[in-house]
Amino acid sequence: MSIPISNQRLAQQIQFILEVDKLKNIIRRTYINGGTRHENSAEHSWQLALMALTLAEHANEPVDVARVMKMVVIHDIVEIDAGDTYFFDDAEAADKAEREQQAAERLFGLLPDDQAVELRQLWEEFEARQTAEARFANAIDRVMPLLLNYETAGKSWREHGIVSADILPRMTHVSAGSETIWELIQSIVATAVADGYLEA
Amino acid sequence: MSIPISNQRLAQQIQFILEVDKLKNIIRRTYINGGTRHENSAEHSWQLALMALTLAEHANEPVDVARVMKMVVIHDIVEIDAGDTYFFDDAEAADKAEREQQAAERLFGLLPDDQAVELRQLWEEFEARQTAEARFANAIDRVMPLLLNYETAGKSWREHGIVSADILPRMTHVSAGSETIWELIQSIVATAVADGYLEA
Repeated sequence: MSIPISNQRLAQQIQFILEVDKLKNIIRRTYINGGTRHENSAEHSWQLALMALTLAEHANEPVDVARVMKMVVIHDIVEIDAGDTYFFDDAEAADKAEREQQAAERLFGLLPDDQAVELRQLWEEFEARQTAEARFANAIDRVMPLLLNYETAGKSWREHGIVSADILPRMTHVSAGSETIWELIQSIVATAVADGYLEA
Repeated sequence: MSIPISNQRLAQQIQFILEVDKLKNIIRRTYINGGTRHENSAEHSWQLALMALTLAEHANEPVDVARVMKMVVIHDIVEIDAGDTYFFDDAEAADKAEREQQAAERLFGLLPDDQAVELRQLWEEFEARQTAEARFANAIDRVMPLLLNYETAGKSWREHGIVSADILPRMTHVSAGSETIWELIQSIVATAVADGYLEA
């Protein structure tokens, strides 16, 4: 059975919310702090929203915090259909864009048209990194797994054979969003190498 | 070891983010859609942020969506120290307020002073339900577990012996935030009883 909802917009919105509940089942390579299990993309998205709220002062340019929060809350929803492409896997990345476009079409398309367009555009903005908000949102999305990797003594790095040279070249764009976070990333990598958590 | 961070504000903010990672370990009574496991408070907070973003038009009064999102992102952080008080457990609820105040003091207190005050006030605002944003945030916080309970055929209700008469009287305040969501709640309960998911 299903819940009768006479308001058509509300019915579509609730269907969307219940469908994207599946983000709780998308498992990332990163472990939660403590290392007891992998994190999922829903709780990761929550953590980025919290980072947006607390770290916005470190963006290179003034950012609209609300816009950054909206972006990070929806940035991984396409993974429900397209899967979580591992950041360090170039083979997986090859057809990522097409898979994600189809996913965005279906998932945001569950919403009323105006909201489908709004959320799709927010997601495209995040991906394109052409605005201050998108650059900052990408910066926090990059640094968070490094922090968790460091806190778990490099557990996920070691499991996937990641070495320090794999990391920094893929993250140089962070400096366009936040020089402060880019410095933090360099510091995490250097400290992880010094501590033996990450191979040089 | 720990990551050297010379910027004192950033160091406090990162310590906060890593400490509240523990919200991923706070397990709620509600199951995720599909019923395979309980949800945790971090992914629940993400889902409320998504609801704030998509359902704000149903608030009784115009709401500042950004403020609602901020509120729901931080509303459960106190559970890290105080635990998740089950909505239907009156005995647990008795000293809830004191435990949560102490938790708020410690956890938000990890942040730079200005942010500690800001987030503490946001949390107090959520709890007090005296603003349009807080009333709406509480409304979506109430309806989400009902939706998941319905979708999992009342799994959590049955496990905890919850009957329909336990639900509505505890949720009447939702109508002050959103008449539309209050009607949805009544519809979920009535349909769940009709479908045999919930005892009358």
